[in-house]
Amino acid sequence: MIISVIGGEDAPANALRFAEEAGRELGKRGVTLCCGGRGGIMEAACRGARSASGHTIGILPGHDASESPPNPWVEFPVFTGIGYARNSAVVLSGDAVIAIDGAYGTLSEIAFALIHGVPLVGLDTWDFAYHGHDDEKIARAASPQEAVEMAMEMAKQRRSPTA
Amino acid sequence: MIISVIGGEDAPANALRFAEEAGRELGKRGVTLCCGGRGGIMEAACRGARSASGHTIGILPGHDASESPPNPWVEFPVFTGIGYARNSAVVLSGDAVIAIDGAYGTLSEIAFALIHGVPLVGLDTWDFAYHGHDDEKIARAASPQEAVEMAMEMAKQRRSPTA
Amino acid sequence: MIISVIGGEDAPANALRFAEEAGRELGKRGVTLCCGGRGGIMEAACRGARSASGHTIGILPGHDASESPPNPWVEFPVFTGIGYARNSAVVLSGDAVIAIDGAYGTLSEIAFALIHGVPLVGLDTWDFAYHGHDDEKIARAASPQEAVEMAMEMAKQRRSPTA
Amino acid sequence: MIISVIGGEDAPANALRFAEEAGRELGKRGVTLCCGGRGGIMEAACRGARSASGHTIGILPGHDASESPPNPWVEFPVFTGIGYARNSAVVLSGDAVIAIDGAYGTLSEIAFALIHGVPLVGLDTWDFAYHGHDDEKIARAASPQEAVEMAMEMAKQRRSPTA
Repeated sequence: MIISVIGGEDAPANALRFAEEAGRELGKRGVTLCCGGRGGIMEAACRGARSASGHTIGILPGHDASESPPNPWVEFPVFTGIGYARNSAVVLSGDAVIAIDGAYGTLSEIAFALIHGVPLVGLDTWDFAYHGHDDEKIARAASPQEAVEMAMEMAKQRRSPTA
Repeated sequence: MIISVIGGEDAPANALRFAEEAGRELGKRGVTLCCGGRGGIMEAACRGARSASGHTIGILPGHDASESPPNPWVEFPVFTGIGYARNSAVVLSGDAVIAIDGAYGTLSEIAFALIHGVPLVGLDTWDFAYHGHDDEKIARAASPQEAVEMAMEMAKQRRSPTA
Repeated sequence: MIISVIGGEDAPANALRFAEEAGRELGKRGVTLCCGGRGGIMEAACRGARSASGHTIGILPGHDASESPPNPWVEFPVFTGIGYARNSAVVLSGDAVIAIDGAYGTLSEIAFALIHGVPLVGLDTWDFAYHGHDDEKIARAASPQEAVEMAMEMAKQRRSPTA
Repeated sequence: MIISVIGGEDAPANALRFAEEAGRELGKRGVTLCCGGRGGIMEAACRGARSASGHTIGILPGHDASESPPNPWVEFPVFTGIGYARNSAVVLSGDAVIAIDGAYGTLSEIAFALIHGVPLVGLDTWDFAYHGHDDEKIARAASPQEAVEMAMEMAKQRRSPTA
């Protein structure tokens, strides 16, 4: 199972703690972490995952490590060379997605998860609404542990809908 | 000058009227319309533009017209074959963007405009907020005419910031 | 009808003359020219097309005109922000493709035309072979006029295979 | 270190043996294998790598496993949703690339390696030429073992050019 963690490069300390803890919980459960491979939330989540011996994939915008240096906790860097259009791939590569905090890139990734029907858990992230289409499709978690448990359960349901 | 109009395939009648009127106003002013090339808001905007002899570009997700039929008012179809990742190109190809109504694809395009700093005018579209980063960077218009005028002014300022 | 002309930024004088003449022939026949929007073969082809009042689309690798300046003869620039991965879109947006000269980007575009079954005419371009799969699927033209006529005929056959 | 192995879905038996052996040699040396994630050469290379406990990444064209089933030996599937435009990412994610056999997708990947300057080793793959720009930049190997050794050496030189 692969769970993607999305969030921005600039994030407040409590969001970074949430991300690191979410990464650690994924690693402890043997789930591979996928992310955008950069700093901030992505780095904290990767560090947490590696601290629990979890695997980490970073899907990067640039062509190589000099253009897009992966954070030091990315085990498997994937260089796309397609810029922020790679945000779609970050979301699609997760069996479910956990969104933490609130950068614009994160907003685009939330939108891609909603477009493609990838299960989505939010942890202190964007609120948005448009008339009938509000953000009810984001399951809201109160803690990193709860976010990981919800995401894993949604990923399992998605794979075996009749289970 | 090229202005992109973003909005979904399923939209209520009043939003479609807004889109057609915005397209017509762009055409009357000699501005080329760019959009995602499909139905709904995109089709209404293209129809309006063509009714005023404006040019229309449609940037489509599929590989060809059988996979992604352009709406009948797209003069120049561009087939990308990269799916919804093409949403980024729709936004980048506009000197400014007008968002109408509220599909998830539109939300991703709004996010890309905010990521890349493309001027953005909203007409009855998404509201969203995350703590300090709210949607204040979307200029809100009350009518299609106002949306077009605001977008054109922002596009001019972007090109000649000292003007 | 849209025909894509592919070729590199650095090209010898005779190839540039071929490209300009091919662009002019397309313009005279009311065919829109699509290309990668940059210099060299692309610029020469666009200049030829505009000299005959043809429309020109340039599908660019960068995010905006400062990162990827279109050549002066591009009427409709499309900014993709996905780098050379945009080569696929250049090919897919043509009803047929004319390849002139021999840069590596051109080689990738020839490969994409072969992958996607887009009709392909070569004018003094790459030769390649792999055992049974050789380059027999590239129709070879001896002059720009012949290249344009062949490409237009192949594009018509593709649209109406029973004609 | 990550080495990408490129090659098509339909390949003759001897090419499949070469691919499996190349994968095994990579795995034995602790090098991660990256590929397009599908069948044929890609599957054989992944099977070889896993048989030697190597890690395998598959960068897939589709949105999910139902659209683009990874071969059974892909440990980390990355779903891009951008179709064959993902070929560029397959090449960019390798510190070096080994091309085996001769499909059109492989030709596009060879072209991307040449565009981006990624070191490239060929094992019974395409020959091509355009006047002065021939395929001299493909280092030719005579066996899977030699291909792996050459690719690893070129990857090391690329990282530490003064070594």
